[in-house]
Amino acid sequence: MNRIINDPDHVVEDAILGYVAAHPEFYTATDNARVVKYPPAPLKGKVGIVSGGGSGHEPAFLGYVGKNMLDAVAIGEIFSSPTAGAFLAAFKAADSGAGVACLYGNYAGDNMNVKMAMKKAGSAGIAVKTVVANDDVASAPAGEIEKRRGVAGEILMWKIGAAAAALGYDLDGVIGAAQKAIDNCRSIGIGLSSCTIPAVGKPNFHIADGMMEIGIGHHGEPGVEVSPVQSAAVMAETMLSYVLGDMPLDKGQEVVLLISGLGATPVMELYIYYAEIEKRLGAKGVVTHRRYIGNYFTSLDMMGVTLTIMKLDDELKKLVDVPARSLGLTQVE
Amino acid sequence: MNRIINDPDHVVEDAILGYVAAHPEFYTATDNARVVKYPPAPLKGKVGIVSGGGSGHEPAFLGYVGKNMLDAVAIGEIFSSPTAGAFLAAFKAADSGAGVACLYGNYAGDNMNVKMAMKKAGSAGIAVKTVVANDDVASAPAGEIEKRRGVAGEILMWKIGAAAAALGYDLDGVIGAAQKAIDNCRSIGIGLSSCTIPAVGKPNFHIADGMMEIGIGHHGEPGVEVSPVQSAAVMAETMLSYVLGDMPLDKGQEVVLLISGLGATPVMELYIYYAEIEKRLGAKGVVTHRRYIGNYFTSLDMMGVTLTIMKLDDELKKLVDVPARSLGLTQVE
Repeated sequence: MNRIINDPDHVVEDAILGYVAAHPEFYTATDNARVVKYPPAPLKGKVGIVSGGGSGHEPAFLGYVGKNMLDAVAIGEIFSSPTAGAFLAAFKAADSGAGVACLYGNYAGDNMNVKMAMKKAGSAGIAVKTVVANDDVASAPAGEIEKRRGVAGEILMWKIGAAAAALGYDLDGVIGAAQKAIDNCRSIGIGLSSCTIPAVGKPNFHIADGMMEIGIGHHGEPGVEVSPVQSAAVMAETMLSYVLGDMPLDKGQEVVLLISGLGATPVMELYIYYAEIEKRLGAKGVVTHRRYIGNYFTSLDMMGVTLTIMKLDDELKKLVDVPARSLGLTQVE
Repeated sequence: MNRIINDPDHVVEDAILGYVAAHPEFYTATDNARVVKYPPAPLKGKVGIVSGGGSGHEPAFLGYVGKNMLDAVAIGEIFSSPTAGAFLAAFKAADSGAGVACLYGNYAGDNMNVKMAMKKAGSAGIAVKTVVANDDVASAPAGEIEKRRGVAGEILMWKIGAAAAALGYDLDGVIGAAQKAIDNCRSIGIGLSSCTIPAVGKPNFHIADGMMEIGIGHHGEPGVEVSPVQSAAVMAETMLSYVLGDMPLDKGQEVVLLISGLGATPVMELYIYYAEIEKRLGAKGVVTHRRYIGNYFTSLDMMGVTLTIMKLDDELKKLVDVPARSLGLTQVE
């Protein structure tokens, strides 16, 4: 895989440099080279919203820093957790005294580093509470939901948590809203090609030409099914059956759809896939209140798509409709 | 290349279906299956802004339909011109009686079909004038500028022309602004991999692993130089030398930068590349007034990047700052 980089061991620093130079309206560098914050943060009286994770998923995570979105992010190496020090620096950057909601994904490294950072934050007098995203239905059975990974549903968890904070919810309220958001989210991905970490130089997993992997993770974690590539219609049917098997939806239920490419997926194909999803949900009487279609949570140059469905109630609906501005998600009305 | 499609011969129809279903705020279908329009269009008294081109470049062209952007687009087969009938239908959809500015790219098929459509529009009493984008410096020498292809500079031409129309310019005024925009634009692309048309199933050109092609066109048209893959810094240096060799910039000159991935380029790499461009422009005293970085004008799953620079004067600066809303480009302030 040919790449547009300088030193493969410095892609994260080099990219952060570009982001901060390009978008002063969204990013202020901090003392920690792996932490950026929204310039107006911390906003007096508002709960700080923090996330963090490995690089290579852009626009996640740093692309969701912005107005009514994340206040600060900790940025890890490609596909690796940020350090505890970076999470701690992000907490400090986001805390106005009203506490910090750390909304992140269920991966061993992130869990460990967030926990260490929280201990130090506690000593420094910063109240931090967490919500751990676990929306990937393919990563563990329904009985072991605590083992499931967080994937693109994290974006909706951030959107909801950040909207709650913007509306003046206190820390427990923000945590409650973000937890409800992710509890109401289910995702599944499908991979049609592998991806290459720049410093490694070759794919660390393999998907054969003509084959696809259902349930593959954002770092190439094994899926639940490998099969020949199917039509977009069959992919939609299969992925919906996993999601709805885990979270049945009644007729009339309102949902948010998030369909994300994995990096190399032509946008045209995301819309072909979307049409198949919408048709099937419509036939069940499920109502799409809002949809996000694009490259929202990627895996470098992987070809594939993820489907995320969030079930709405009145509160989530109100929160998802709050305007927001960030590189990855701008919502005007 | 594995794909997320149904029938490879119906990808364009299937994708349009998805776009229209997903974004009623941006798209109304028309009697012509290959034409979509912005729902409020035609706006009484406003010059209609139309473009069109082959599919596979998403979000171009239809992703730029929206508020203060395109009023209607004609949509071609993958990498092929829309028909004359589609251009004519787009003119009709966009005309409020104030005339239509058809702003499109310099390709043989588009030139022919726009010309035929204009003839019929004339008979129907619709005034249509055109600007033909030719911003790709690699596609012909400076002495044969009329042979140059239009590439990502088209987006800035649309932005400027549409802003002029929104501010109440008449048809000649809109054409003048759009012409000035493209006259002040220079672009060059670099390809690091080929791309695959779904109905063909294999790449119709080849870039070897470890090699890159400078000046490659959006459909794989041959570039001016093939070399081993260089660092992002060297790519930036080379591409800037082509652009600035063709359009020198004085110290203090304000510009708009548009850096677009070609489809499979990780966003992270676009920002690494951007930082190299900005550093070099800064060293020359050139001032970036606004920058667009992302997948703005793609070529299916091609890996690579295009650089577009638009030189600003007071009028272009005012027009580029007009707010806009579309899938591909939303500008809030």
